[in-house]
Amino acid sequence: MSDSRSRERRVLDAVERRREVVNDALAEELPVRHPDRLWEAARHLLDAGGKRLRPTLMLLVAEALSDAEPMSEDYRSFPDSNGDTVDLLRAAGSVEVIHTFTLIHDDIMDEDPLRRGVAAVHEEYDDATAIIAGDTLFSSAFELLTETGAPAARGLDAINLLAETCTRICEGQSLDIDFETRNDVVPDEYVEMIDHKTAVLYGASAAIPAILLGADEDTVDELYAFGREVGQAFQIHDDVLDLTVPSEKLGKQRGSDLVEGKQTIITVHARDRGVDVEGLVDAETPEEVTGAEIEAAVEELEAAGSIEYAREMAHDLADSGKGRLSVLPENESRELLAGVADYLVERGY
Amino acid sequence: MSDSRSRERRVLDAVERRREVVNDALAEELPVRHPDRLWEAARHLLDAGGKRLRPTLMLLVAEALSDAEPMSEDYRSFPDSNGDTVDLLRAAGSVEVIHTFTLIHDDIMDEDPLRRGVAAVHEEYDDATAIIAGDTLFSSAFELLTETGAPAARGLDAINLLAETCTRICEGQSLDIDFETRNDVVPDEYVEMIDHKTAVLYGASAAIPAILLGADEDTVDELYAFGREVGQAFQIHDDVLDLTVPSEKLGKQRGSDLVEGKQTIITVHARDRGVDVEGLVDAETPEEVTGAEIEAAVEELEAAGSIEYAREMAHDLADSGKGRLSVLPENESRELLAGVADYLVERGY
Repeated sequence: MSDSRSRERRVLDAVERRREVVNDALAEELPVRHPDRLWEAARHLLDAGGKRLRPTLMLLVAEALSDAEPMSEDYRSFPDSNGDTVDLLRAAGSVEVIHTFTLIHDDIMDEDPLRRGVAAVHEEYDDATAIIAGDTLFSSAFELLTETGAPAARGLDAINLLAETCTRICEGQSLDIDFETRNDVVPDEYVEMIDHKTAVLYGASAAIPAILLGADEDTVDELYAFGREVGQAFQIHDDVLDLTVPSEKLGKQRGSDLVEGKQTIITVHARDRGVDVEGLVDAETPEEVTGAEIEAAVEELEAAGSIEYAREMAHDLADSGKGRLSVLPENESRELLAGVADYLVERGY
Repeated sequence: MSDSRSRERRVLDAVERRREVVNDALAEELPVRHPDRLWEAARHLLDAGGKRLRPTLMLLVAEALSDAEPMSEDYRSFPDSNGDTVDLLRAAGSVEVIHTFTLIHDDIMDEDPLRRGVAAVHEEYDDATAIIAGDTLFSSAFELLTETGAPAARGLDAINLLAETCTRICEGQSLDIDFETRNDVVPDEYVEMIDHKTAVLYGASAAIPAILLGADEDTVDELYAFGREVGQAFQIHDDVLDLTVPSEKLGKQRGSDLVEGKQTIITVHARDRGVDVEGLVDAETPEEVTGAEIEAAVEELEAAGSIEYAREMAHDLADSGKGRLSVLPENESRELLAGVADYLVERGY
């Protein structure tokens, strides 16, 4: 096995092990209770899977900061340098729960019927239940983050960051909706949209454990920037995958973003270069598009340099993010954080 | 002018003066900004009016607790007994903003086209915008409450209460939706529903200023109970008004709850007494019901003692709530709090 394959294996194993711990905590913290239908709906997507990448980042940051042997500490009473302890699983749960709430509401807004291989909440139940289930997760996340046991001033800072992050996420989703009816979006606007919609929650995930454990401001800021850049890279890589991975592997029609007229960094760049993006594909639904039509569109986007532009941007962002990890002590957990960043921009689908 | 008329005038004047202060603060804290359409939608109902009763309760509790001359202190730096100061307008804003968020989402769920005399947000914009505007207010409320400047431990306690309250509100709305398809709801279940959907936010409104100003636990608990009982009384009085106030004065069809098959404390009590509640009104929309039909239904509910039962319950709750105000020093603000409680169960519409 090559070095890079063995490193990837180690990273995926680290994610997998923390995923299980986070899933157990989410089951403990958010059991189905009265009124059952509401809580079942709130748990629907949590139970449908997900990699728990954001909570994993949080746990790895905490472990790297405290220079602890990976997974050697009790995450429920994780020690800071003063001997105070923090329930990191509540903090990690809060971020995953916020992520899940945004998925539920986004799926209603975008009328997406499927998520994580199961029916979206509004399909499995109805729009009203999905709205209220999302709201319930939203408030539950704040309940969790008020109950980490961290010193109060740090707890308050963490909550302030999470709340501000949620406002940014809403702004990002709003921009995304606006972009659907615009064909003059420029790359900077697109990056602002994905930054708000996706990247700031990665930023918060990296910063919150540092805040709760009492790291200095510079460390917190650098970790926030790490998560944010990596989050942007993740989203841009997603745009590349949609065009470059065969449908069988992608689990959906290759080029579906193009067919649906969705803005991506690739289309906004291409339009900037004079490509008639709206004319690239005639088909109006992913079902009726042909492989040849997508192939021709991809060739035109390649020729405009737009796919390479996106690929480079994703890698530059991930590299910049990884550079910021130098605020952490050198240890296995820091290596794993860099590995997660690489995974986000190198995963094949 | 009679004593009770002059007292009511004083109470309404106190509400009105604080309403203006709260409106100014909301305009400062939540200006329309980029992306404009989102923030305009978020402000739509805030700008449409509302009595700001919850913020007014908060300001009055703070004034009563600190034994200050009404409206003599700067609400932006309101002193506690240790000389720390609290931005009460951010706290008051957070609760009003939570209330507004619930109105926006409830109107989508209930498909209500009107609110506060203007189009509901989902009507003025669309469902997607209304969902995201509500979410934006939700997170903004938590941002506001993290920024009151109160000592951190108190801030954290206040946020915990607000988050828990929001979860309860979601549970209450979920119960309300479930009740629409049930005809075996008993009074205790109905009270649980209005407690969660409406009363806990009044409880939080009364308790949060006490928490932020460092009141002892017993005082906080009694103020929470005051708000909660008064909130329940308010909702039950609403049920009575729907049946007993002429349509012209009510601003909507008298008896519309009955026509729409909505559960109220009156119908659940009447059903318990053997009244065929579903058979009381034949009309299926408020437009086609006749005054005579409503009149006959009200007579049957009067005969079953259900309207009197509701009236008494509202007054008993308000009286119990007012009794709890004895934890506060005797002063003008405490009198006004009792007056607001009376107003909530005596207002004519």
